[in-house]
Amino acid sequence: MTKLKPIWIIYTPYKKDGDVPYQSCKSKDVDEIEVSKEYEEGLKDIEGFSHLIILYEFHKSVKRSVKKEHYLESQGLLVKPYLDDTPRGLFATRSPNRPNPIGLTIVELLERKRNVLKVRGVDMLDGTPLLDIKPYVPKFDQRDNVRIGWLEGKI
Amino acid sequence: MTKLKPIWIIYTPYKKDGDVPYQSCKSKDVDEIEVSKEYEEGLKDIEGFSHLIILYEFHKSVKRSVKKEHYLESQGLLVKPYLDDTPRGLFATRSPNRPNPIGLTIVELLERKRNVLKVRGVDMLDGTPLLDIKPYVPKFDQRDNVRIGWLEGKI
Repeated sequence: MTKLKPIWIIYTPYKKDGDVPYQSCKSKDVDEIEVSKEYEEGLKDIEGFSHLIILYEFHKSVKRSVKKEHYLESQGLLVKPYLDDTPRGLFATRSPNRPNPIGLTIVELLERKRNVLKVRGVDMLDGTPLLDIKPYVPKFDQRDNVRIGWLEGKI
Repeated sequence: MTKLKPIWIIYTPYKKDGDVPYQSCKSKDVDEIEVSKEYEEGLKDIEGFSHLIILYEFHKSVKRSVKKEHYLESQGLLVKPYLDDTPRGLFATRSPNRPNPIGLTIVELLERKRNVLKVRGVDMLDGTPLLDIKPYVPKFDQRDNVRIGWLEGKI
């Protein structure tokens, strides 16, 4: 099976779980996301896009001692989310403790300098392995008339 | 480094590259996405969400013989996209040939029966390994005032 292969490490001011903003939309900080020099050429034309999809590894999710109240029965397939008291199915949450620990955040691209992207909206822990950068394209990535289940009224 | 671990295989009517709709927004087909029985409990509460983010492995991307005109210099860091004649930086495209071959598609959830999700908007090749399912939440995943660079006017 394919192994994840970080294209760099994301350095952020968030050293531990409690520091991280709850989702990117709450983060107004401006940070830098670097890709390894060997991938710099792959950033050509990225300046044209105002928003990027960042995929990264939840590298602390399996190792960290998950608080019992947030991680329940059955190999963690039920999760008590941060925003709720009811155990929810893992795939109906954005919990980092997933079979494939891949996180997804949309950031605003402010500027690119060589292999460094200045972005707003970072919500990853410091030291997070960067896996992929994709252009955010509303026609592909945006939907209307969305229902948000148990999150309704909570965000 | 973490290995990807499929939570099931996505079966679709698209047997080869040319069959696949260009992005999910062009796909009106209704298909089923299954998760392995062992993960069924993780789908609890997912019915409340109208749209899901599907992460999957571009399992054919490294193996398939990429047409020369779509895959250029420097280890494929420049790509001539399907929709353009100019070589673009890989990370400014949605090309499947990426350092981490992870694809992302938003589908509409029509119905759930146990471990099977009936969805609209599938654009993966048949046999694609399913990696993750996340609820699509506009507040987290949607942005306004978006610029789409070289894709402007092409989609």
